[in-house]
Amino acid sequence: MAQNVAQKLIDSHLVNGTPKPGHEIGLSIDQTLTQDATGTMVMLELEALGLTRIKTELSVQYVDHNLLQTDEKNPEDHLFLQSAAARYGLWFSKPGNGVSHPVHQARFGRPGTTMIGSDSHTCAAGAIGMLAIGVGGLEIAMAMAGDPVYLQMPEIWGVELTGKLPDWVSAKDVILEMLRRHGVKGGVGRIIEYHGEGLNYLTAMDRHVIANMGAELGATTSVFPADDAVREFLTAVGRPEDFTELVADEGAKYDVEEHIDLSTLEPLIAKPSSPGNVVPVHEVAGEEVYQVVVGSSANPGLRDFAVVAEMLKGRQAHNQVSLDINPTSREILMDLTKGGWTFDLISSGARLHQSGCMGCIGMGQAPAVGRNSLRTVPRNFPGRSGTDEDSVWLCSPETAAAAALTGRITDPRDLEMDYPMVQLPTTYSLNTEMLVPPLAEQDAQEVELVKGTNIKSLPEFDELPDDMDVPVLLRVGDNISTDEIMPAGSRVLPYRSNIPAIAEFVYIQVDDTYPARAQELGSGHAIVGGENYGQGSSREHAVIAPRYLGLRVVLAKSFARIHWQNLANFGVLPLEFVDPEDYLSIADNAVLSFRGLREALRQGHDITAMLEDKPLELRHKLSDRQVEMVLLGGRIPQRAAQDTSAQPHEEIKPAQPEG
Amino acid sequence: MAQNVAQKLIDSHLVNGTPKPGHEIGLSIDQTLTQDATGTMVMLELEALGLTRIKTELSVQYVDHNLLQTDEKNPEDHLFLQSAAARYGLWFSKPGNGVSHPVHQARFGRPGTTMIGSDSHTCAAGAIGMLAIGVGGLEIAMAMAGDPVYLQMPEIWGVELTGKLPDWVSAKDVILEMLRRHGVKGGVGRIIEYHGEGLNYLTAMDRHVIANMGAELGATTSVFPADDAVREFLTAVGRPEDFTELVADEGAKYDVEEHIDLSTLEPLIAKPSSPGNVVPVHEVAGEEVYQVVVGSSANPGLRDFAVVAEMLKGRQAHNQVSLDINPTSREILMDLTKGGWTFDLISSGARLHQSGCMGCIGMGQAPAVGRNSLRTVPRNFPGRSGTDEDSVWLCSPETAAAAALTGRITDPRDLEMDYPMVQLPTTYSLNTEMLVPPLAEQDAQEVELVKGTNIKSLPEFDELPDDMDVPVLLRVGDNISTDEIMPAGSRVLPYRSNIPAIAEFVYIQVDDTYPARAQELGSGHAIVGGENYGQGSSREHAVIAPRYLGLRVVLAKSFARIHWQNLANFGVLPLEFVDPEDYLSIADNAVLSFRGLREALRQGHDITAMLEDKPLELRHKLSDRQVEMVLLGGRIPQRAAQDTSAQPHEEIKPAQPEG
Repeated sequence: MAQNVAQKLIDSHLVNGTPKPGHEIGLSIDQTLTQDATGTMVMLELEALGLTRIKTELSVQYVDHNLLQTDEKNPEDHLFLQSAAARYGLWFSKPGNGVSHPVHQARFGRPGTTMIGSDSHTCAAGAIGMLAIGVGGLEIAMAMAGDPVYLQMPEIWGVELTGKLPDWVSAKDVILEMLRRHGVKGGVGRIIEYHGEGLNYLTAMDRHVIANMGAELGATTSVFPADDAVREFLTAVGRPEDFTELVADEGAKYDVEEHIDLSTLEPLIAKPSSPGNVVPVHEVAGEEVYQVVVGSSANPGLRDFAVVAEMLKGRQAHNQVSLDINPTSREILMDLTKGGWTFDLISSGARLHQSGCMGCIGMGQAPAVGRNSLRTVPRNFPGRSGTDEDSVWLCSPETAAAAALTGRITDPRDLEMDYPMVQLPTTYSLNTEMLVPPLAEQDAQEVELVKGTNIKSLPEFDELPDDMDVPVLLRVGDNISTDEIMPAGSRVLPYRSNIPAIAEFVYIQVDDTYPARAQELGSGHAIVGGENYGQGSSREHAVIAPRYLGLRVVLAKSFARIHWQNLANFGVLPLEFVDPEDYLSIADNAVLSFRGLREALRQGHDITAMLEDKPLELRHKLSDRQVEMVLLGGRIPQRAAQDTSAQPHEEIKPAQPEG
Repeated sequence: MAQNVAQKLIDSHLVNGTPKPGHEIGLSIDQTLTQDATGTMVMLELEALGLTRIKTELSVQYVDHNLLQTDEKNPEDHLFLQSAAARYGLWFSKPGNGVSHPVHQARFGRPGTTMIGSDSHTCAAGAIGMLAIGVGGLEIAMAMAGDPVYLQMPEIWGVELTGKLPDWVSAKDVILEMLRRHGVKGGVGRIIEYHGEGLNYLTAMDRHVIANMGAELGATTSVFPADDAVREFLTAVGRPEDFTELVADEGAKYDVEEHIDLSTLEPLIAKPSSPGNVVPVHEVAGEEVYQVVVGSSANPGLRDFAVVAEMLKGRQAHNQVSLDINPTSREILMDLTKGGWTFDLISSGARLHQSGCMGCIGMGQAPAVGRNSLRTVPRNFPGRSGTDEDSVWLCSPETAAAAALTGRITDPRDLEMDYPMVQLPTTYSLNTEMLVPPLAEQDAQEVELVKGTNIKSLPEFDELPDDMDVPVLLRVGDNISTDEIMPAGSRVLPYRSNIPAIAEFVYIQVDDTYPARAQELGSGHAIVGGENYGQGSSREHAVIAPRYLGLRVVLAKSFARIHWQNLANFGVLPLEFVDPEDYLSIADNAVLSFRGLREALRQGHDITAMLEDKPLELRHKLSDRQVEMVLLGGRIPQRAAQDTSAQPHEEIKPAQPEG
């Protein structure tokens, strides 16, 4: 049967299950990617698992999220990560080397392979024909330990691109168009596969932009074929030998079909405070702009910076605007400098920052309250910028540069300017010196983990009780993001290696009494959510920290994929309302009672709880494997139990038994 | 009579007193400089004074200290400063335009003029024949209001330079040699004037390095003649018309004489944690280095970066080293980029940061605990880096680059390398677009101050009581710096516009119970210090915040100049022990009793307090003017009283009466 690209990738890595939408499948994993904000926890999980050396073909630990070093906690995370990478056999990308996704695509990505990453934008690698999925950190740790990754087989959503983008419209507008059409839940349970002759005009880095922000649609991942554009890219970065063609078979079908005529697109912008609030730029033109931020994995290519530089060349950023430029990587900054674009940017008034995520993750560059900040980043969830009452808009580099020049939101087509034709080099700068290779196994054994005082081992979690009475400590609305559950930003992110400390910050933007109430209660509690609960970042701290505070069960209308998986991985029971209207019937502090959970979960997908004295119909979507995992308190205790009981892997020591 | 440069500068600006060492003199002020960390308070003081428009020839508000924007507080300071500059008639240097001192020298400095600045390194402008003095913020506010600045006439310390620096030894080593010889108090009560044929080999930016770190000797300021090197500099930055020759007369004399033969110097380094701990680099060679930071006003010249770039060109920073480069200014980064040096630095693994003070003031780039950080910055007081238990060393760019290459402290002469001959351009890049000029007076009147929620007006302070019984809440040792009294760094600096909030951090590194004890006490208290109390940064928050907590009197063996002045300016009585041995007799919480202070202070310089039941002999060095000021509660109430009683200045409204 004729296969599409996604099917080929899945078939070639299938180790478990049947790839029919909704069924659980297990896939073997070739590569993993971790960054610093989630990676310290992954390394602590490797420690908890007692792993000796990773079993993946290639794993890379990046440092890109927190580079500010406002005190000793941040550099100590860097030292810990470097030592852990050496200890377990990972590559280490030093602070300042760049943002994980584009660096990975340039240095390590290979068409036809699978990758999971503890970052929700891992999917960006779909740009070069990889099946790349963002998951919680524990999934990565297990993959490094040799386990497959499990997921529910998604639908394949074929998006046919035809035509060519007009001047002043670029890849970012393609993904913003997808968000305009479908919103932040439009891709849930789907893999988006782009195809069609419109691809001929999109470079591998353009495709990266589109694949990256598939995460904002809630998609499992996005894939592009590995075609000539990918060959060209891998040649330009000095790795032609890593190219393998991977294209859909003639006549391949998709579960869902969509079409975009690129020639009809116009500059788009997502209004505050959701990537789904997309409107044409001209509809909001004229709004005063206070800050423009260019960079991030959502617009990482040399072109994305060069086009801004060409627009600003010989001109000045508006007096009232702070223009912040975050080069993606050291290599891209080298090429920007070679091309004269660094000079143009600085001359026009840009604040040129070190290579990394920076303002995209709220580590610096926070805007003033209520002032408009236009950014080429992927997300504008409330507070993610580092400012609680922020006003962040998402747009293309062209739209961002237009605002930098005029001090107002401006459709770049309205500038009296020719569209700059950026001439990209055919060969990119190659500089791998800030990528520290894995140590030989023998040397690696001798490496001691460097643990500063802020780095705490993973807490141990107990089994799910068979009977429990849990009060609802918090009831929240739809589309709650992991940024709201577990804030990032400069005040919180430095505690990512310290669960007891970071737990003090859970949900503080929504209800700052929650952590104290949970701790005071001491025993287990529940949280109730709306639709798409836990969207956004893959951070598993959004589960581990509330679990540490006593969270046992989350009731929601629906869950975002990665967060749902994280809940199960750490033994928190994710349940959905059979009747979404029941959401309204749950008062604050109402007590939910469960009886005989063990049997109920094993028997089927329906669960009845008592809400005070009335029955409440709920259901779970856990596979049998996941049910057992949740009952045991999560995946680490499960692995430990397996190792103890059945055939222990030679290299894996059991985690300590639950207390 | 033959005059030296310092005497000429003083004579031409003398409005009060006789310029004999130790006598109080008043000088008219041509220019002022404020930066963001101290400037928000200065702007709040202008507000408290009710000033309409500044009366100085030129005043510039820089933003260079805090650029991280980890939350909304920092950008709101920037907005406040920009609005205040517009309101009162100052130039505004936008965030990212660069470090105040070198930018000021390039764009505004003029030989033969006077300047005061609310930054202790203001003295750097002595490099081009200015009399430039770091003072507390209130002095600046008063100078902007048209008042002279008062100081005790210093001795003039002539330092004759002969010979020429050897390869691998540069300007930083000259000032480190001065610190090696004389320590951090060696310059107290002195103006250092450099002269001699050795000057022929020191450019204006080399002289900036030396003048800048005169602050670390405790000197009132440093001056260099305005000679051909200064003419060359002003021509290169596009302002030949601003050059005026200013050299010492033939046969001019100095109060103190010193000689340095430049040809005998070697690479020097200040060990942790004082700029006075200077030793030859070879004595400490071999120590492991974890971080190298290049930048700051203590090594701001294009040459200082270019020499590092030339040393690193085609090589790589050591794997275990974080190499952080903080370009001084946008203009210098433009020239670094033009010269190909930016490319060399990035290629070698440097983390290139935005232009500003950055790690020098502990806003980012904090090192890991106990790991050696080599920096070209002026100060290494404990904790200033942002890490309490830091290990910061001060050295030249050459020594810093050598460590970046080897991962160890290395005498650069031991590298197998030719000393790079840096070819500097004869004309520098000129780009003034990030300097916002003052508004016309009429437009300025209409400007509203933009005050975010973290910006609080200055508290009001009452008169000094005639009788008081004050317990000693803290007794500290010698050389306490203002970094210890009022920490900077990322946790504290964002509260620089909010005295009640920042007061919570006073002395926390020394005794974190002090703020709470002081507030609990409610009434006045005393602090006892050793020698050179209040050295370092000019920040007046180190007085205003403890004053807000109830500080009434400081007893010390001796005071650093700026801090002593700040104490008097805010109505805190600075007293010295007649017998320094009495320092030992004061127990914690001992109560000091003063009776009839008003008369005693007016009558003379001797003050007797009762320490429990024993008399304690003390003295003050206040002028008659200062005695009245302290009695009234400080300079703002004094000014208000003058305005109300005698001839009110047309433009100045009285501050509100004390409550």
